[in-house]
Amino acid sequence: MRDVAILGVGMNARWGELWQMSLRDIFVEAALNALDDAGVDHVDSMYVGNMSGGVFVEQEHLGCLLADYLGMTPVPATRVESACASGGAAVRQGFIEVASGLSDLVLVGGVEKMTDVGADEATHALSTAADMEYEAYHGITFPGLYALMARVHMERYGTTREQLAHVSVKNHRHGAMNPEAQYPSEITVDDVLSSVMVADPLRILDCSPITDGAAAVVLCPLETARKIARTPAVRMLASAQASSTIALHARSDLAWLESTAAAAEKAYKMAGRTPQDINVAEVHDCFSIAEILAIEALGLAAKGRGGQAAESGLTALGGRIPVNTSGGLKSKGHPVGATGVAQVVEVTRQLRGTAGARQVAGARLGLTQNMGGTGGSSVVHILEAV
Amino acid sequence: MRDVAILGVGMNARWGELWQMSLRDIFVEAALNALDDAGVDHVDSMYVGNMSGGVFVEQEHLGCLLADYLGMTPVPATRVESACASGGAAVRQGFIEVASGLSDLVLVGGVEKMTDVGADEATHALSTAADMEYEAYHGITFPGLYALMARVHMERYGTTREQLAHVSVKNHRHGAMNPEAQYPSEITVDDVLSSVMVADPLRILDCSPITDGAAAVVLCPLETARKIARTPAVRMLASAQASSTIALHARSDLAWLESTAAAAEKAYKMAGRTPQDINVAEVHDCFSIAEILAIEALGLAAKGRGGQAAESGLTALGGRIPVNTSGGLKSKGHPVGATGVAQVVEVTRQLRGTAGARQVAGARLGLTQNMGGTGGSSVVHILEAV
Repeated sequence: MRDVAILGVGMNARWGELWQMSLRDIFVEAALNALDDAGVDHVDSMYVGNMSGGVFVEQEHLGCLLADYLGMTPVPATRVESACASGGAAVRQGFIEVASGLSDLVLVGGVEKMTDVGADEATHALSTAADMEYEAYHGITFPGLYALMARVHMERYGTTREQLAHVSVKNHRHGAMNPEAQYPSEITVDDVLSSVMVADPLRILDCSPITDGAAAVVLCPLETARKIARTPAVRMLASAQASSTIALHARSDLAWLESTAAAAEKAYKMAGRTPQDINVAEVHDCFSIAEILAIEALGLAAKGRGGQAAESGLTALGGRIPVNTSGGLKSKGHPVGATGVAQVVEVTRQLRGTAGARQVAGARLGLTQNMGGTGGSSVVHILEAV
Repeated sequence: MRDVAILGVGMNARWGELWQMSLRDIFVEAALNALDDAGVDHVDSMYVGNMSGGVFVEQEHLGCLLADYLGMTPVPATRVESACASGGAAVRQGFIEVASGLSDLVLVGGVEKMTDVGADEATHALSTAADMEYEAYHGITFPGLYALMARVHMERYGTTREQLAHVSVKNHRHGAMNPEAQYPSEITVDDVLSSVMVADPLRILDCSPITDGAAAVVLCPLETARKIARTPAVRMLASAQASSTIALHARSDLAWLESTAAAAEKAYKMAGRTPQDINVAEVHDCFSIAEILAIEALGLAAKGRGGQAAESGLTALGGRIPVNTSGGLKSKGHPVGATGVAQVVEVTRQLRGTAGARQVAGARLGLTQNMGGTGGSSVVHILEAV
């Protein structure tokens, strides 16, 4: 397999409720920014990470649609879906295609247009990531599922309500430095604790928002990047994915992300690195508890200590391992199919040293963790500045 | 890139209106049959071709769901979507993953459960493969779009209404020999011409049906297949995909499948073969006119002569290049996400010499062509008996 690098990255100007833009407009903006950043005007192949265009905007066949609107036909263009891990899964397909030698320039974009439907419909659309027959059909939604995971974590490890809040507070503090973020505003622990209850113990400020947005990356062989990249080359040391049971009730441990742990183990092995080597990470904080579970499964915090990591500042900018410097899903927003790609965009900027006010000094090795459902799918990437 | 082979193939027992089975049941049946045929009890990775689980059965995240129900967690499992070419696109991802060296055993399944909704909802779900904003929103559906293509072909090349009928008659004659087919019954030209009008000139017997079904293949390196295959090895000589405009009105020629022609050109080049070398082909006859357009774009018939190919018997069993020996989408059924995988299943059986009553004598080289929408996406595979 060939070594793979990231040649260009891009986002649409700002994530949020983009009522004046269609899905295709948002995607094309991000893709053009990535192509411009890469300094190329063509690609050999395209992948689109998208969770539910069919339900959100009544549009499937997004690979074709977006290759067309980007002016890239007749390149192969395929949509990849793995619920909220669709973006990460799409990046992995691009990685494999470049590594295989089949293509030299692959564009991977992620996009979701979620605000064209009402909140009820959006909640329904998201529930299709759960087991429809055994979970969603009976009325449970994702805040409820993650609330169950939070309860177990609190009961077993003594994780406090305040520690959950610290995750959101930290990510909003980071997001306040990100002009692309949907909610770039700082919040306090009191704000979280007094916000509207969604599913006990999770309140609205524990939950990532409904977002329209897109992100894109251009991948190429490392050798090519060394020759033509106008920015420091970023190597994809590892790309790993794993699955777990789709239904939460089928897991042996509700407070442990098996698929993230499995993907991380493969990724560390592929990269020849350990959790202690990671300088910066973007993880899937769809709910505050999710970041806590993710950093434990990734080995960035000990089992049961994820809550303390947020409270102590370990995972804040300036801490030992800054997590979600972009603002994470909580502050930056969570257009589900775009999230996994945007994580790679943020870590690439950190490794290039171009993350501005939220730069992690001297970051050389970064990690992304993107997951679908309650962790039925996870994708982990490890990137290195070279 | 490593050479890739097909180690096992399988279908669920019979395609049709499977009201007693859920999407997951149908998929698991086909996948277990493919694993049994391959003689393996594990895989390294999985792909699921599916067009619109979100709209048809309110279930996304199908990679995770189906890895789970197949007992394959924690393998990476990703759903691939390219409208009605989802199955072909999924096979291509499996091909790339094995070719890259990342995985040695990859299961690729395709599935669609279409009959849990009414005909109106199914028509809506399928219309999400068209350009929703510029085509479907205004009321046109796929029979209407293909009728436009048929009209142009008839006007320009003198293709007759009877020639369209001959495509359906031939495919039903083939399908009558296929115990897995949804409609294994012979029909006559008169049956087609007197059947209910759907979108002039296309009548109901020009149209493929609404179907529940699944198909699966197990891929591995050719070297492995030579060692462990219990059946003659089938090599994947080429896997190619291309895109075109999603909207029919944006094409320079309504009677020419640009994406199929582009994918075929790449595939023939990759395989080092020409159309004249092909012994058997499965093509995307979602409507009778579609087969005519497909064989022209593939170079199996001259431009404008696709209708005569069906009428003259060129593409029938016993003809020079038998097309859709399985019965095609018309007789076998068209569970959209499964179709591209099932085409590979049929050609594999032909190249193994195990196609029973519908065997093409001495078939050594086979081709599949799977497309999405009105040809916005096409995937072409070339397989060889080795």
